[in-house]
Amino acid sequence: MHRRKFFTALGGLAAAAASAQGAVTKYVRYRRGNAASFGILRGDLIQPIRGDLFGAHQPAGGTVKLSDVKLLYPCEAQKVLCLAGNYKSHMGGRALFKNPEIFLKPLTSLQHPEDPIVLPKDSTNVHYEGELVVVIGKRAKDVSVEQARDVIFGVTCGNDVSEREWQNGKNKDVQWWRAKGSDTFAPCGPVIARGLDYANLMLRTRVNGRVVQEENTRDLLFDCPTMVSFISRYITLTPGDLIFTGTPQTTQKMSPGDVVEVEIEGIGVLRNKVVAG
Amino acid sequence: MHRRKFFTALGGLAAAAASAQGAVTKYVRYRRGNAASFGILRGDLIQPIRGDLFGAHQPAGGTVKLSDVKLLYPCEAQKVLCLAGNYKSHMGGRALFKNPEIFLKPLTSLQHPEDPIVLPKDSTNVHYEGELVVVIGKRAKDVSVEQARDVIFGVTCGNDVSEREWQNGKNKDVQWWRAKGSDTFAPCGPVIARGLDYANLMLRTRVNGRVVQEENTRDLLFDCPTMVSFISRYITLTPGDLIFTGTPQTTQKMSPGDVVEVEIEGIGVLRNKVVAG
Repeated sequence: MHRRKFFTALGGLAAAAASAQGAVTKYVRYRRGNAASFGILRGDLIQPIRGDLFGAHQPAGGTVKLSDVKLLYPCEAQKVLCLAGNYKSHMGGRALFKNPEIFLKPLTSLQHPEDPIVLPKDSTNVHYEGELVVVIGKRAKDVSVEQARDVIFGVTCGNDVSEREWQNGKNKDVQWWRAKGSDTFAPCGPVIARGLDYANLMLRTRVNGRVVQEENTRDLLFDCPTMVSFISRYITLTPGDLIFTGTPQTTQKMSPGDVVEVEIEGIGVLRNKVVAG
Repeated sequence: MHRRKFFTALGGLAAAAASAQGAVTKYVRYRRGNAASFGILRGDLIQPIRGDLFGAHQPAGGTVKLSDVKLLYPCEAQKVLCLAGNYKSHMGGRALFKNPEIFLKPLTSLQHPEDPIVLPKDSTNVHYEGELVVVIGKRAKDVSVEQARDVIFGVTCGNDVSEREWQNGKNKDVQWWRAKGSDTFAPCGPVIARGLDYANLMLRTRVNGRVVQEENTRDLLFDCPTMVSFISRYITLTPGDLIFTGTPQTTQKMSPGDVVEVEIEGIGVLRNKVVAG
């Protein structure tokens, strides 16, 4: 019997996650005063760390209260890559892709937890897309699917904000640069969870408290190691790079004042308010 | 009479460039030993500088011979943006675009002058695209076309290397991530020329010494300040960002062993050899 199914049969997702996954570490990046630091979150306290988030690091100084800091998107990426059409439930009957279908967002689209998603002035149809996000921990070029497991440092929550007119409308752009890449269109965080079985996590998106997307990451068509391996055939991945793994089901237009939350089991809640640009 | 036409009438491009443009400074980024530095190139000598390339900087130490260093792509970008279809001669009769059509390349696609363009193992039809590249010198969000002139620090040469099967072929990808973004697909350099009239520069691409593209940048459909202004409505530009402004005329497949040169008047020659991956 497949281990994942066995645990699920035992008693639902929470039990499966706890049993199969062992110790989970939650890394945060935060600002206190003018300085940005990394730390490990335990309950409501952050243990600051020094050194290399993706390599050797040690505790540095006393703990800091979570409520005394501003959480930032959880690492400094060099690249933000995203998958299109990676849940069957999102494809609306269209043919599934043979390869992982990738696109890029610029670093300037990254947004911190609790900070606003800003609707560009001439946008008309901006949607949420709740997603699991892979955080790369090692340089990777031409890695196998098996090697890719070791390249993945952890996972976080992301919102692949998308302007549908610019993406698919009558006068759509040739490429998705602003449809997917406008400033604040890639909220990400609040923590990097390391040690989770990211192939079995419930993902929920809520708008103003109402659940609008709900699906388990086991339904990803191309799983995380597969997408990492495929991308690495063409593009060298480096520590901190982020891969938005695709959104499930359908999406809807957001309006100024809306509060969008992407919650993933074992990670936490990424919350952003929508504002007019 | 328009100033540009007046000078061209006077005695050709070289005279126009020299007269209309005044002092031109050529900035280089180079490696000597293990250290990367910036400097100002005068003839065959580099005057190292310290400080902020895009702000206050001063001479630092004695000159270095150009032949004693390795030139690098000329700045550390946070983003590489590119234009599609920005010369009429490249559009083959297709309708021209109403807006600048933008796409992104990842930073890992940047390649140094004289370093190889590596053809991905399963690529079949990789083309050169010689281009003028804009280097951003100031943070810019929502800038006017007039303000954009002041945001542009200088210009360099670029090769927007493109895999046509992945871009336009029968089984093309949804987006151009690997068609345009594979490792080494964005050679750039050798210098940033500041003070040039970038709206009037002859661009030539050569393959193995034979001219294969030749057109003046005055033929750009969306000129440099216009594209900077348009991009800045959606994406914040930051110092060092690079904008590949589009390629003229037609392009052809490159093969291992080919030497591709992009030469732009007043800047210099960007030379890269093509190798099998």
